[in-house]
Amino acid sequence: MSSGTSRVVCDMAMSLDGYVAGPHQSLEQPFGEGVGDRLHQWMFDEAEEHAEVIEAVTAAGAFIMGRNMFSPGRGAWDLGWTGWWGEEPPYHAPVFVLTHHEREPLPMKGGTTFHFVTGGIEAALERAREAAGDRDVAIAGGAATVNQYLAAGLIDELRLHVAPVIIGRGERLLHDVGDITLEPVAAPTGSRLVTHLTYRIVR
Amino acid sequence: MSSGTSRVVCDMAMSLDGYVAGPHQSLEQPFGEGVGDRLHQWMFDEAEEHAEVIEAVTAAGAFIMGRNMFSPGRGAWDLGWTGWWGEEPPYHAPVFVLTHHEREPLPMKGGTTFHFVTGGIEAALERAREAAGDRDVAIAGGAATVNQYLAAGLIDELRLHVAPVIIGRGERLLHDVGDITLEPVAAPTGSRLVTHLTYRIVR
Repeated sequence: MSSGTSRVVCDMAMSLDGYVAGPHQSLEQPFGEGVGDRLHQWMFDEAEEHAEVIEAVTAAGAFIMGRNMFSPGRGAWDLGWTGWWGEEPPYHAPVFVLTHHEREPLPMKGGTTFHFVTGGIEAALERAREAAGDRDVAIAGGAATVNQYLAAGLIDELRLHVAPVIIGRGERLLHDVGDITLEPVAAPTGSRLVTHLTYRIVR
Repeated sequence: MSSGTSRVVCDMAMSLDGYVAGPHQSLEQPFGEGVGDRLHQWMFDEAEEHAEVIEAVTAAGAFIMGRNMFSPGRGAWDLGWTGWWGEEPPYHAPVFVLTHHEREPLPMKGGTTFHFVTGGIEAALERAREAAGDRDVAIAGGAATVNQYLAAGLIDELRLHVAPVIIGRGERLLHDVGDITLEPVAAPTGSRLVTHLTYRIVR
């Protein structure tokens, strides 16, 4: 299924206690209650220091995300909603959104087109691989989507960006993923606001 | 209460998903089901590489641990039980064990004496500080004990030794500790088997 160099990668900003978002995510608080920008502060306040890491986050040839990451709503689509990212989303590539509700593809400025996939995680991965060609496919989140791909053994490289923050409740990464084996493939690096950990998932 | 240089430190080996032990700890499986030596393998297989870190783990002038870490039993004491560590435990210093059941101090070879404290975490810390003098006091575990001290704001430095392992259930560190603020105070270092993260707890 995979071409020679294409991998499935996943970058996630995570709290030290394993959360990627707090409870009750909403339009006003996309990362849930009590979280704000604290997990991603390094991307803004230390953008230059982490330029290489930030570049890698959006370098994939195609992306996959859960419905919850695309939209605060549930159920039938509000067709006026085009994602959190404005007219020109930062993906600049096809993005495959997992959903139970069909929707026509949504082309945005800058090369991002959102495709809506109702066939499940493997179908979405197949389409993303095809779109990405030799480039990587990135699982963009949220936690439930990443955990499903991890449990299914479909992620090659997991890059955790651990903020020195305790969230305490909400969306937990690495939950119900089974006893997967990880192997560090890069030395950890860090700053005041984040530690970068890079793991290969051993098959 | 504290002397000039004495700090309260805590070293914990933790899985990537935040556990320090699996469920159902027992005499046969002190770290619970499905864990074995996986969280501490770096201490044995890469002892030389991590010599400085390992040295720091036992460098304190006094230690505090929960009853659960001293003994697999509950309720009244089995006076024949002298801990998991044989005749000469690796602490070589006073160890204060939190318990609801009084027991006479238990001197062991090599300078370790187990003291049993029924007055709660602050009473234990007061006695440990007194015993440690200018040296650090170490909170040795397990998770419930560390979490209590973190929630009470009584730990100065938290040193996490994160193994690339998913445990999935059991004793979770950093759970119910409140929204404490951490600040990395050393660059992360790592090997194939562990990543060392050092945080100061900001007051």
